[in-house]
Amino acid sequence: MPSNASSKHRARKRAREAARSLIQSAHAWTPESLAHAVCEGQREALAQAITWVESAHPDHQDRIESLLHLAPSQGRSLRIGFTGIPGAGKSTLIERFGLDAVNRGARVAVLAVDPSSRRTQGALLGDKTRMHELSKHPNAFVRPSAASSTLGGVARSTSEAIQLCEAAGYDLILVETVGVGQSEVTVRSMVDMFVLMLIGGAGDDVQGIKRGVVEMADLIVVHKAESDRMASCRTTASAYRQALHVLPQPPSGSDTEIFMVSSMTGEGHPELWQHIEALRQTWTESGWWQTQRQQQRLEAMDRHARQLLIESHMHHKSEDWQKLEAEVQRGHASPFASARQWVHLPLRP
Amino acid sequence: MPSNASSKHRARKRAREAARSLIQSAHAWTPESLAHAVCEGQREALAQAITWVESAHPDHQDRIESLLHLAPSQGRSLRIGFTGIPGAGKSTLIERFGLDAVNRGARVAVLAVDPSSRRTQGALLGDKTRMHELSKHPNAFVRPSAASSTLGGVARSTSEAIQLCEAAGYDLILVETVGVGQSEVTVRSMVDMFVLMLIGGAGDDVQGIKRGVVEMADLIVVHKAESDRMASCRTTASAYRQALHVLPQPPSGSDTEIFMVSSMTGEGHPELWQHIEALRQTWTESGWWQTQRQQQRLEAMDRHARQLLIESHMHHKSEDWQKLEAEVQRGHASPFASARQWVHLPLRP
Repeated sequence: MPSNASSKHRARKRAREAARSLIQSAHAWTPESLAHAVCEGQREALAQAITWVESAHPDHQDRIESLLHLAPSQGRSLRIGFTGIPGAGKSTLIERFGLDAVNRGARVAVLAVDPSSRRTQGALLGDKTRMHELSKHPNAFVRPSAASSTLGGVARSTSEAIQLCEAAGYDLILVETVGVGQSEVTVRSMVDMFVLMLIGGAGDDVQGIKRGVVEMADLIVVHKAESDRMASCRTTASAYRQALHVLPQPPSGSDTEIFMVSSMTGEGHPELWQHIEALRQTWTESGWWQTQRQQQRLEAMDRHARQLLIESHMHHKSEDWQKLEAEVQRGHASPFASARQWVHLPLRP
Repeated sequence: MPSNASSKHRARKRAREAARSLIQSAHAWTPESLAHAVCEGQREALAQAITWVESAHPDHQDRIESLLHLAPSQGRSLRIGFTGIPGAGKSTLIERFGLDAVNRGARVAVLAVDPSSRRTQGALLGDKTRMHELSKHPNAFVRPSAASSTLGGVARSTSEAIQLCEAAGYDLILVETVGVGQSEVTVRSMVDMFVLMLIGGAGDDVQGIKRGVVEMADLIVVHKAESDRMASCRTTASAYRQALHVLPQPPSGSDTEIFMVSSMTGEGHPELWQHIEALRQTWTESGWWQTQRQQQRLEAMDRHARQLLIESHMHHKSEDWQKLEAEVQRGHASPFASARQWVHLPLRP
C-alpha cells in the first residue's frame, strides 16, 4: 500500500530529522549558526538559544555575548508582564490573550519566570499541559518556566530570552511571573506594561496582594468574572478602585485601570486589548515608551553586572575560600566575618 | 488630685524616656553599647540592632561585623520557618503558636521575610495590627517585615536577626515567609524546621504550590480546619499525603507529616508542637540537628559573600561605569556586553 509505505517513509524521515536536530543542539551550534537560525525564526533554534543564555557558567559568557550580539532585537515588539497569586488563572488568561493575538496576525511568545522551582520543575499536582492550544499554533512560541538555580539567573535568562524572541520575529512578548515575590520587581523592569491579576472574592486574597505590587501595575484584571462569581468580582474591583486612590499615579502618567475579565466566556478580553493598544499609543506620543525602555536598558546593565560579578567570583572558589570555610564549619569564625575577609582578598589571579 | 498628678508625672517620665531612647537610637549607639543592650534583652536595642544589619551600605560593614561579634548566638534556640500562599493564615497560626509557647515559659521572636514590599511596606488592604496580642507579651518580640531593596539584603538581615534574637535570649525563633518565591529557599537554609501551610479546598491553591516547596517542608499544616471547611481540608491533606509518596525522603530522614490545624479553635496545635519536639529529639540523637546547622553556616558564608561582593562593587560606581552606561543608554552597546566589560575591569583602586 503506497500510502502506508509513504507514511512510514515520512515517519523515518521525521525520526532522522529529530535525531539530527538533537545532535545539532548538543554539539554543532556555534553562536553564528544559532543566531542565524534564530533570526530565521526556527523555533528549535530559539529554544536552544534560550537554554544557552540560562547558563550561569562563566565559561559560557563568551558564546552568550556573541549570540546576543548576532541576534539583536528589532525593538518593535510589545512586552507585557502578568502577575497574580496562584489560582488567579494567569496561564488561562495568557493563552486566550495569545490566541486572540495570533488570530489578529501577531506572532506571540510566552515566557515564564518561576524562581521557586529550584530543585524540580513545574507544579507538584495538576500541572497539565500548559497553554496546549496556543503552543501548537505556528505563530506562537511557548517556553515553559526556567529552572535556574538563582533568581539572578532567571532574571538574566528572561531578559535575554525576550531579546531572542524579538530577534526571531515575535512581536508580542507575554511574560508570566509566579505570584508573590521578588520576581515581580524583576519582570516589571523588563516589560512595557505590567498586568496584575486578581480573583474576586473574600478578603484573604485581597490581603495577600502587597501594596508594592499594586503600585507596579499599569492595569488590573479581576479574572474569572463569570456566572456566580460576578458579584464577588465586582466587590473586589471596587475595593481596588478605592485603594488606587491612595496610591501615587504611576510614572507613566496613565491611571491604573481595572478590568473584569473572563477567559472562559471571553468577556472583557477585547476591552483589555483595546486599552493596551491605547496605552501604547499614548506612551509613544508622550515619550514615556522610549524613556521607560531606556531606563530598562540601564537596569538590565546593572542586573547583568551583579549576576556576572557573582558568576565570575563564586564559581571557582579558591583555596582561600576553602580555608575560611573550614574555620566556619568548626565554629571558629562567623560566616559574616569570613565572607567579608574573602571579599576583601585580592580577586582573581 | 494626687493620682492625676502622679499619672501626669508618669506620662512626662515616659515621654522623657521615649525621647532619650530616640536620641540614643539615632546617635549614641556604638557596636559595644548596642551589643551589650541586646544581650541584656532590651527590646528596643534588639530592634535597633536588626535595623543596623539591614543596611546594605558598605560603610556600615565594620560596625555590623563588630556587633555580630559582640552579640553571639547562644545556639540553644529552635528556629522554625513558615511558608504558604497568601490567605493560608500564616500570621494567625504563628500568633497562636507563639502565645502557646510564651505560656509554656518560652521567649519567642517572630521575624518576617517579605521581599515583595520594595517600595512601600505592608499589605495594601487589610493590614490590621499584626499579631497584636503576641507583640504585647513581655516574653515576645515581633519584628515586622523588612523593607530591604534586595532579596540578598532581606536574606542577610534575617539570618543576622536570628542571631541577634538568640543573643537577646529568645529561644523560639519563628520566621514567616511570604508565599511563593525565592525567599522560601533562603529561609529554609536558616531554620531547623520548615512548615508548609495550605488551605483546604479546590484544586487551584493546590496547583499553586510548587514541588520544590513541598520538598523543602519538614511538616505540612492544612490550616483553617474548622466547621464547614473540614471536608475540603481532609481532601487536601489526603491529596498531599499521596503526593508525598512520589517525593524522595527529606535529608533529615524523617517523613513529612501532615497536620490539620485550626488556629480559631486551637485544634491540632498541641499535636503540631508535640511533633516538633519529637523531631528535635530525634534529630539531636541522629546527629542531623548538628549536621544541618553546620551546613547552614557554610550556606550563610556563601550568601554573605555574594551579598558583600555586590555591596562592595556596586555601591560606589566608578567613572568607567558611567561611561559604559552612557553607551548603553544611547543604544551603542548592549547591557550584557557592557556589564561584562565592567566586571572584567580591574576592581577597586
